[in-house]
Amino acid sequence: MNTNTQFRDIIRIQDTSDFISENFLLENKTAEHLYHNYAKHLPIIDYHCHLSVDEIAANKNFENLTKIWLNGDHYKWRAMRTNGVPEMYITGEASDWEKFLAWAKTVPYTLRNPLYHWTHMELKYPFGINDKLLNGDTARDIWEECNALLNTKEFYAKELIKKFNVETICTTDDPTDSLEFHKQLIEDKYEINILPAFRPDKARMIENIGLFNLWFNKLQEVTDIHVNNFRSYIDALRKRHNYFHDNGCRLSDHGLEITFSCDYTSEEIEKIFSKVILNKELNRDDILKFNSAMLFEFGIMDSEKNWTQQYHIGALRNANSRMYNKLGPDTGYDSIGDFETARPLAKFLNRLDSNNQLAKTIIYNLNPADNELIATMIGNFQDSSVPGKIQFGSGWWFLDQKDGIERQLNVLSNMGLLSRFVGMLTDSRSFLSYPRHDYFRRVLCNLIGKDVENGLIPNSDELIVPVVENICYFNSKNYFAFNNK
Amino acid sequence: MNTNTQFRDIIRIQDTSDFISENFLLENKTAEHLYHNYAKHLPIIDYHCHLSVDEIAANKNFENLTKIWLNGDHYKWRAMRTNGVPEMYITGEASDWEKFLAWAKTVPYTLRNPLYHWTHMELKYPFGINDKLLNGDTARDIWEECNALLNTKEFYAKELIKKFNVETICTTDDPTDSLEFHKQLIEDKYEINILPAFRPDKARMIENIGLFNLWFNKLQEVTDIHVNNFRSYIDALRKRHNYFHDNGCRLSDHGLEITFSCDYTSEEIEKIFSKVILNKELNRDDILKFNSAMLFEFGIMDSEKNWTQQYHIGALRNANSRMYNKLGPDTGYDSIGDFETARPLAKFLNRLDSNNQLAKTIIYNLNPADNELIATMIGNFQDSSVPGKIQFGSGWWFLDQKDGIERQLNVLSNMGLLSRFVGMLTDSRSFLSYPRHDYFRRVLCNLIGKDVENGLIPNSDELIVPVVENICYFNSKNYFAFNNK
Amino acid sequence: MNTNTQFRDIIRIQDTSDFISENFLLENKTAEHLYHNYAKHLPIIDYHCHLSVDEIAANKNFENLTKIWLNGDHYKWRAMRTNGVPEMYITGEASDWEKFLAWAKTVPYTLRNPLYHWTHMELKYPFGINDKLLNGDTARDIWEECNALLNTKEFYAKELIKKFNVETICTTDDPTDSLEFHKQLIEDKYEINILPAFRPDKARMIENIGLFNLWFNKLQEVTDIHVNNFRSYIDALRKRHNYFHDNGCRLSDHGLEITFSCDYTSEEIEKIFSKVILNKELNRDDILKFNSAMLFEFGIMDSEKNWTQQYHIGALRNANSRMYNKLGPDTGYDSIGDFETARPLAKFLNRLDSNNQLAKTIIYNLNPADNELIATMIGNFQDSSVPGKIQFGSGWWFLDQKDGIERQLNVLSNMGLLSRFVGMLTDSRSFLSYPRHDYFRRVLCNLIGKDVENGLIPNSDELIVPVVENICYFNSKNYFAFNNK
Repeated sequence: MNTNTQFRDIIRIQDTSDFISENFLLENKTAEHLYHNYAKHLPIIDYHCHLSVDEIAANKNFENLTKIWLNGDHYKWRAMRTNGVPEMYITGEASDWEKFLAWAKTVPYTLRNPLYHWTHMELKYPFGINDKLLNGDTARDIWEECNALLNTKEFYAKELIKKFNVETICTTDDPTDSLEFHKQLIEDKYEINILPAFRPDKARMIENIGLFNLWFNKLQEVTDIHVNNFRSYIDALRKRHNYFHDNGCRLSDHGLEITFSCDYTSEEIEKIFSKVILNKELNRDDILKFNSAMLFEFGIMDSEKNWTQQYHIGALRNANSRMYNKLGPDTGYDSIGDFETARPLAKFLNRLDSNNQLAKTIIYNLNPADNELIATMIGNFQDSSVPGKIQFGSGWWFLDQKDGIERQLNVLSNMGLLSRFVGMLTDSRSFLSYPRHDYFRRVLCNLIGKDVENGLIPNSDELIVPVVENICYFNSKNYFAFNNK
Repeated sequence: MNTNTQFRDIIRIQDTSDFISENFLLENKTAEHLYHNYAKHLPIIDYHCHLSVDEIAANKNFENLTKIWLNGDHYKWRAMRTNGVPEMYITGEASDWEKFLAWAKTVPYTLRNPLYHWTHMELKYPFGINDKLLNGDTARDIWEECNALLNTKEFYAKELIKKFNVETICTTDDPTDSLEFHKQLIEDKYEINILPAFRPDKARMIENIGLFNLWFNKLQEVTDIHVNNFRSYIDALRKRHNYFHDNGCRLSDHGLEITFSCDYTSEEIEKIFSKVILNKELNRDDILKFNSAMLFEFGIMDSEKNWTQQYHIGALRNANSRMYNKLGPDTGYDSIGDFETARPLAKFLNRLDSNNQLAKTIIYNLNPADNELIATMIGNFQDSSVPGKIQFGSGWWFLDQKDGIERQLNVLSNMGLLSRFVGMLTDSRSFLSYPRHDYFRRVLCNLIGKDVENGLIPNSDELIVPVVENICYFNSKNYFAFNNK
Repeated sequence: MNTNTQFRDIIRIQDTSDFISENFLLENKTAEHLYHNYAKHLPIIDYHCHLSVDEIAANKNFENLTKIWLNGDHYKWRAMRTNGVPEMYITGEASDWEKFLAWAKTVPYTLRNPLYHWTHMELKYPFGINDKLLNGDTARDIWEECNALLNTKEFYAKELIKKFNVETICTTDDPTDSLEFHKQLIEDKYEINILPAFRPDKARMIENIGLFNLWFNKLQEVTDIHVNNFRSYIDALRKRHNYFHDNGCRLSDHGLEITFSCDYTSEEIEKIFSKVILNKELNRDDILKFNSAMLFEFGIMDSEKNWTQQYHIGALRNANSRMYNKLGPDTGYDSIGDFETARPLAKFLNRLDSNNQLAKTIIYNLNPADNELIATMIGNFQDSSVPGKIQFGSGWWFLDQKDGIERQLNVLSNMGLLSRFVGMLTDSRSFLSYPRHDYFRRVLCNLIGKDVENGLIPNSDELIVPVVENICYFNSKNYFAFNNK
């Protein structure tokens, strides 16, 4: 058929070299200008991630790509399962090479998923692989090339992080954590700030009384406080909060389906807490009230010390009980919820605000249908204490891709002040995820570049460059006010 | 670094003059054609706004930009608070100039927010300022230039409105309002139709019995009806409805979190109403049933007189009680809710429709996640009585920006008949907001122009020009059927 | 005005011929390449539609456009009602020509609605009308031209389907259906696979006990089973499930407001079922529990036979009771709901999965605000049994238009594996709807083509062509595994 031949001709010139090119994601000259002249040079403040501080302190040598890239990455696991890969090659007993090969064969099937971009960005930085795409055919070459690098000192944990121009990292830590590795890194004079962040979810999780008691005993041990009522419980937690503060912590973090904001009285909470201590049965109301009280108390602590509190809301976790029983949490069986958001969140923030105890706050939502709700909610509690006091957090988890990032940036722009946004964080468990900051910066520069060239914002560097630079670096620098080395 | 220098060169030619240019928001020739040849010349019917009719009747002289532009504009207040401006410069005791300066300094931080566009559109029309962007440096010049104009007769309220090619304005009025200023404007032979609209929210607000009683007494006074039961209450309200009708009113409006549609009996409502009269305590059910009955009764009145009823649904209001206590409502502490919408709204509309008492209706939703729900809901109740009988209202409040307007237009296009849309309204409290109609028309022409040039709709003026003209003007002209002068 | 004249000149060259051109919806060369060289040639597997199998078996002659195109198409009816057309010309006693004329006059008002595209695509294929747009002026010519064709043998039902390169059609059938027409088509050696699909909604609908009993008696009759308890009820249904399987059925389908997933015991269900048999009153809880049990039992049957179960969730049906009483269901009075989705859906799927009884599943959602929720939910239940085991269904009903299709494809891409998607279905009641597969393929090729030319995916046919071909045809071929002729 003539027509077809004609069309086929057009596309003959195919070129997959340099897929992640210098101008990847940058669609016009203004975008290129903003990115190359300003955004890309700025240091990274990764104010929320799940890197393992002991692995940093130990300057861990990851022997191969599976160890550093696949183990623990449930984004990739989900993709492999969807692709029909047997669990043996995902979390099972297959060899590291077999697992890598299974992943490599899945990669072409991830086209248009952020994994496709991340994979090739991470192969380019830091491994320098830019001439081939990962698939079953190229797997062996890439495996060998990367593994060779991983076994050089330059790719041990401490050096690896330094490659990415990271200035500060906040890890995610339980209140009972000794923070010994954070301290060790200071003693070792490691060039990058590795700060703890306070994540007290276990202090609220009284549904599973067995797990709670293990944790509760540890709390009493590390604080040397005998907890026998709610007040002393809070005292013990505040002692840890102080301890974290002394070790440089300036952020807390809470994982929530819903924002707990039930009404309760002190008496009720004491009664519930004594049930907890005595291992008595709790009803649904007890749990909701207790969580409400705990969130409120943590909010007060954060306010007292001028910390920033983070709320991650809207995840439906551990949806697959068969696999939960095999693999536990955070293994790729979570999804987006549709829980009521506006009223409980407003009530919670308002209660703290009414007492002048509302700390700086970042709200991350998992359901993008709530983007506008959140972007307008934060406006209800802004005050003159600090610009952008209440923040709409960057696209989280499933939303951490080009569309999700753009949508968050656009909604925040339309309904708040983009210019005051504290920007990107990795939220990652992997030492190879820092290119996501680069990804974010390219998306940001591209949005602003397109607006300029469409006449939607003035063509003025005086106006737009500070916005870009502030979102990439200076806003978070000023907002969190970490004690820098 | 070579690369950077290269990129930096590209952007050297910067030009911020004429930011709001002739073709602002128009991305191709068809869009320009539609806008410049058709859309921009049409008169404005502003069928819902919050302008103060007494200020029009008094032909008010606004002495400076703060008085006409900042006082009462809670959109700007929220932006300033987010920017860290102390409340003193927002609603406090600072001078008008200080407040204006604080706003001017905030403007560059509003980049990508509709405030940035509105600000510069309003400085261009009517003030003619198009050569500078508002910021701390230009504040003094712009202040003096605009204030000089504001103190000429041409910028007094009556003349100001005339500049914008406005044909009809519907204000928002309480049922107890005397409408004396509307009458006066007729007597004064003011060239523009200034019509009342019936907003009886206070007639439902029995939660705050103190406030209700004040209003209730006023109702009895102006109607000369002694209300002692629900029936006489409705009689009194219908008397006001008649009075509004005689004064040219053809629209009602209701502000709702949710659409009240509980089941109730007449006996229950009489019982609840007697509790209200006797200041007895009301429970949550009483309030829901009463509101349901009231909405229904108002619907009947509107149907009887062929009015259009408007429902504004989904706002979470007065979220910040600390500031509510200081400043009252409508001061910038409202946001988007996520209330159940489909079932109660369908039930309410269906009940009226079942009795052939469903009036022309416009539904405005604040949560854009409900756009598709609303756009399909209206289809359930269309009939042959009038084209586009049930309308999906234009992007409301937080959604009144380019993205929000486009999203509403696109959803309505996909799920209903865009061609029958009654189009834009300002919903504004400010005499300077009329450029928002221009904004809307540009967005509309741009969408249609892009579709034409992408081959999505035929390149036929015969087909597309009427759609544009009808949405800008003729649809609302025919739909509301005001008695024109 | 000079400016205007200038703009008016620009657009003088108007051309509406060939509106649905060869490259309709294809915005760049890569998109054209993918569509013309690959997508357009592939056969169609229409795995879910509502075509009437008896009309196929009878090789029905549709005498005119109204009979084949307007009767039964509630999409068009809604548009006409919105346009103010009296019901007489929609579902009433007007002549076929009058109804067609009323539709033709409405068409220009559907601009930007998918009806505008579908209408002109369907006039082009199969009728060959591409030189005029449908409106009041062209109605008579088009009516005559098409009717002449419709009365040739080539346009009788069997031949008509063959024009569209259809390989397999799955109809939608009640469990009590004899499937005689499916059998007849096999006997007649009709070239296209016409398979039944199992839609047992009536087996759950015990709210209307009168209607249920009629259906229930028929079930007992066709199965020759005397049903006197829940177990024998399930036995009877399984007998029909077997029967459908023997006749080539491999899919079930369920229409749901919400996913029923209440807790219940066998005893409770037996008790509820005996109430049903005895015509005793049922409460809301009974109905929810019964539906939950039924959905679960059907899931087990589908799992046993390796069928695919389809769930259509989120429609608010029969919202207009006045018209329901006149016209019955499926007449254009349904809309999008906002029911709780995540928790009940997860609970339901998890229960089946826990017992290794989760069949291949396709979930269609009507509220696009839930797209991301669904796209991540399916990830919770993927396993290695088959690639893409749990599917996020293509844009359904109101979402079956360019924006809705793109949104579904983009969300699935971002949060799952687009490459494993089983693609398009018509869900249509009309023999003229097959161009919607063409529409979908163009949209798909366009999205991928744009990504390639924007550098978002590599410019490699090796990578992108299989994705396109698989989504258009091979994925559904492999996934459903019908027994082909």
